[in-house]
Amino acid sequence: MAVPETTTVMVKKVTGDRMVTVEDEVAREVPVTLFLNDEELVTLVCSPGNLEELAVGFLCSEGILQRRTDLKDIFIRPEEGLIWVETSGPVPTRQHFLKRYITTCCGRGRSSFYFVNDARGISPVTSPLVVRAGAILEFSRELEENAALFQTTGGTHSAALYSGSQRLLLYEDIGRHNAVDKIFGRAFLDGMELKDKLLVFSGRVSSEILVKVARMGIPILIARGAPTDLALEMASEMGITVVGFARGERLNIYTHGERIILP
Amino acid sequence: MAVPETTTVMVKKVTGDRMVTVEDEVAREVPVTLFLNDEELVTLVCSPGNLEELAVGFLCSEGILQRRTDLKDIFIRPEEGLIWVETSGPVPTRQHFLKRYITTCCGRGRSSFYFVNDARGISPVTSPLVVRAGAILEFSRELEENAALFQTTGGTHSAALYSGSQRLLLYEDIGRHNAVDKIFGRAFLDGMELKDKLLVFSGRVSSEILVKVARMGIPILIARGAPTDLALEMASEMGITVVGFARGERLNIYTHGERIILP
Repeated sequence: MAVPETTTVMVKKVTGDRMVTVEDEVAREVPVTLFLNDEELVTLVCSPGNLEELAVGFLCSEGILQRRTDLKDIFIRPEEGLIWVETSGPVPTRQHFLKRYITTCCGRGRSSFYFVNDARGISPVTSPLVVRAGAILEFSRELEENAALFQTTGGTHSAALYSGSQRLLLYEDIGRHNAVDKIFGRAFLDGMELKDKLLVFSGRVSSEILVKVARMGIPILIARGAPTDLALEMASEMGITVVGFARGERLNIYTHGERIILP
Repeated sequence: MAVPETTTVMVKKVTGDRMVTVEDEVAREVPVTLFLNDEELVTLVCSPGNLEELAVGFLCSEGILQRRTDLKDIFIRPEEGLIWVETSGPVPTRQHFLKRYITTCCGRGRSSFYFVNDARGISPVTSPLVVRAGAILEFSRELEENAALFQTTGGTHSAALYSGSQRLLLYEDIGRHNAVDKIFGRAFLDGMELKDKLLVFSGRVSSEILVKVARMGIPILIARGAPTDLALEMASEMGITVVGFARGERLNIYTHGERIILP
């Protein structure tokens, strides 16, 4: 499949007090809609390669495909993110299938449409907040050092909310998205103003994480992990500063770098 | 909330040709069911702490709670994993909500029930396959070195299928679960026998990953990340060997260690 798996973006790479602007590759994140026997079944948010394997493997994982003979035909339009699978036998009804799909911890259904609709309801962030690159690296270090569950098990994600250099909240969860939702929940319960806060996050920045940050109206997202191209597109439009790979002495500024000052 | 966030398990820790059996802590993974205005809305698979923050944050992320006054009441039974939220105003219908929840990339709905049902359909793995600890570390190293998309972007997960010391398949995806589904899909399409194969995985082992491996009938799962307690319970019952933190010169054997030989 000739669909590119990465996109080239301009990144401001900061090391100590030096900043260089370079081209860098980020992973693409695309929604792919799967039709089962001509009925729309599911939209997977994924990397764009090997869609035949993904669609078939997903249906195997769901127990919909069990024997090789269950699969009658498969047709893919990679550029449009559309897959049609035909089974030789009957399959679970869509309603039954839906009921098994209520979940929070990751990719949203019908991604692009979902985000377009969401974006309509969310106004771009216009905060004058700025932060020093040096402080960002301290926050990232503090997050890792204070994530007790991660320190004990190595198996959880964490998110922290900062005001200036003060850490107000820190939550952990086995689910990347849950850690961010816990911040959102506490801030909501306490009626916190978030337009002047920073979110520090242990994980990778996919589109769903970006939607949560946009909904909160937080202007600066600092992640220890990598962003996807879709998350960066949304951040750029929503006025959100995304910093990735904030670890050790280095960080990458991907969007709205005007909020980051050196060193 | 006094609910413990970790569980103590016995682990065989291997370093070079030495193995010690010790107690270690793994993160707990629990299903929590959220009722909105007395209607069951969603089950989140999560860490058991800060459930009030999680439930409220989830509803905020979904746009169901927007103003502080939208939240009328919240009642939690942490031990049972049950949360009731009452809103002061009307909220989206369950049907509308469901439609937005078709997704693959992470936690399944109604986790415990889901897995119980799944387990019924899956027979335990009884493969005589064995592997050397030294080979496991080579596979883990190979996975990282050959994950081209990860090497380029640092933002993807990878999974590889091995027969003996030969790598048959390797796929990458921004979604942890998608990488494993791509292996499942290709193996299904090619009619591969999986009872004598190993799966090498870049990520953390949650219950959903374990269900996929059990469905495939793969006897040995080697992960670079940490497992959850729920994944280990299932692996133990399903006869699956789980090796975690397989990086550098060290690895942890969590379940069915009879398939691992030293060095």
